[in-house]
Amino acid sequence: MLSFQQAALDFEQFLNRPSLFPEEPRNLYDPCYYLLQAGGKRIRPAVCLMAAEMFGPLTEDAYHAAMAIELFHNFTLIHDDIMDESPLRRGQPTVHIKYGLTAGILSGDVLGIYAYQSLSKIQSPLLSEILKIFNRTAIEVCEGQQRDMDFEKMAKVTLDEYLYMIQLKTAVLLACSLQIGALIGGASPEDAQRLYQFGINIGMAFQLQDDYLDAFGIESKTGKRAGGDIRSNKKTALLIHSQSFADDMDRAVIDRLLLSNEEAKVSEMQGIYLKIGSDKYCNDIVNQFDESAHKTLAAISIADERRQPLRDLANYLLLREH
Amino acid sequence: MLSFQQAALDFEQFLNRPSLFPEEPRNLYDPCYYLLQAGGKRIRPAVCLMAAEMFGPLTEDAYHAAMAIELFHNFTLIHDDIMDESPLRRGQPTVHIKYGLTAGILSGDVLGIYAYQSLSKIQSPLLSEILKIFNRTAIEVCEGQQRDMDFEKMAKVTLDEYLYMIQLKTAVLLACSLQIGALIGGASPEDAQRLYQFGINIGMAFQLQDDYLDAFGIESKTGKRAGGDIRSNKKTALLIHSQSFADDMDRAVIDRLLLSNEEAKVSEMQGIYLKIGSDKYCNDIVNQFDESAHKTLAAISIADERRQPLRDLANYLLLREH
Repeated sequence: MLSFQQAALDFEQFLNRPSLFPEEPRNLYDPCYYLLQAGGKRIRPAVCLMAAEMFGPLTEDAYHAAMAIELFHNFTLIHDDIMDESPLRRGQPTVHIKYGLTAGILSGDVLGIYAYQSLSKIQSPLLSEILKIFNRTAIEVCEGQQRDMDFEKMAKVTLDEYLYMIQLKTAVLLACSLQIGALIGGASPEDAQRLYQFGINIGMAFQLQDDYLDAFGIESKTGKRAGGDIRSNKKTALLIHSQSFADDMDRAVIDRLLLSNEEAKVSEMQGIYLKIGSDKYCNDIVNQFDESAHKTLAAISIADERRQPLRDLANYLLLREH
Repeated sequence: MLSFQQAALDFEQFLNRPSLFPEEPRNLYDPCYYLLQAGGKRIRPAVCLMAAEMFGPLTEDAYHAAMAIELFHNFTLIHDDIMDESPLRRGQPTVHIKYGLTAGILSGDVLGIYAYQSLSKIQSPLLSEILKIFNRTAIEVCEGQQRDMDFEKMAKVTLDEYLYMIQLKTAVLLACSLQIGALIGGASPEDAQRLYQFGINIGMAFQLQDDYLDAFGIESKTGKRAGGDIRSNKKTALLIHSQSFADDMDRAVIDRLLLSNEEAKVSEMQGIYLKIGSDKYCNDIVNQFDESAHKTLAAISIADERRQPLRDLANYLLLREH
């Protein structure tokens, strides 16, 4: 059975075959190669392969599905970076910064179409079913991005709205990778649905952990300077929780901090989060999603050792050592 | 058998069913409705239905395919208008002008995905084949748009390069509509291929006629003021032909006109086109493509009266009265 690391490497080799795209027009395909070769952890395609192998020997179909998901993911990255005006991605200039706005739009578009081209290579009679799952997910990802952008302009976002947004923007694509992989591997629809739910839970836990680590993480562990979200007033689970449960005095402090650019903003906001218990809330729901994930994984009707690689992956993503 | 006008109306009804998209998020779906309801001649979906009916009774599958093609077409319109910085489309402000850049990008993206969702509703066992044709075409449309944008920055474009660009940007989607419609209707792969070729020929003739009419058209007939392409220095078949066959003196005139914004620019450039024979060249290839289209249509193994609606459509699009 492939470990996550092996699955990611396997996929990387598949991705690096020559002539993934035609040579011409170069202005269309150079930006595609640029982003795909800038790296990325390949979590989604790797779990697609792992889910397939859980139920049977790996086939070409699993690689085509994994490729579709990675291409689709990269298409959304290019367009999201334009919409979010992000200058950097994976430590390099984003596509629209390096190649311009029109190149970013059109290269993203063509990557999205190549995702479907890869899906269309699937030989399995389940193609129609797989296509439906993929489409539903792709629509949800767009809706998640729209909600995320809408939030920036809204005075108040509830925790439920936030959780639903990250489910759409982040968790469903991971979940879809697992479900499609499982179906290709020969899982029953029920077991494939369990892996979908496992993916939702892991995806939610991972994103909420990311919110926590961004605010409180140790730079040597996360590789990022703590407080980026606080500095940019990003509506995270922590901020939304604090705003929801603050008394009048704390709310006044939060409102003042949101208008401030002082260096003390980060430590003061951390103080508010700790006082209101938003850090604990965040960790608690990470643990709840983590537990649900393991329970769903355990419910799959398969020999226990075949669950191990995905169990290890969950622990790796959620920085668990058990 | 449906005439083009009937097929377009039929499709319009199918398009206007309630809940084509979900209600939320409105910022995502309002721009989609806005463009779709702004009209359009529905040529592509109509020919898809007509091609299907040529070979058998119309089924839901044909409508799903027609819808996929219309949604895909509208997706490319939104993104092309951003890339080309066009302020107007169908007489209304373009999506990015009305709703902003990010709405334009994301609404276009989601329309593209809904195109595939519509395809996935096709019950025919040919779904995989149809998906492959659609994907190849979608990639070609992107490549055509890229080539078109590349041309703007190139000093010299050859007629062959230009013809290939308009084939990709315009003709292949019409051809794909016909081919997929035919396959759904029960055509043999050979006859479906013939309808594809018919679509290429009609698409090329239509675009080249458009080049001609833009330069020489009578406003009362075309509804557009003549000379728009000349005023904006657009590299059309006429300009490229003139540049290719001009002697040194004419070339100097062309170069001077390309730098000019004077009112006489249009009439002087028309004079050059007439002198070099670019108008004749343009009309000749329109006629050649038109003839090829009718020949390919005639080669389809079917009762002659079943060809009539597409023959009428070709004559209608190419302003023929025979």
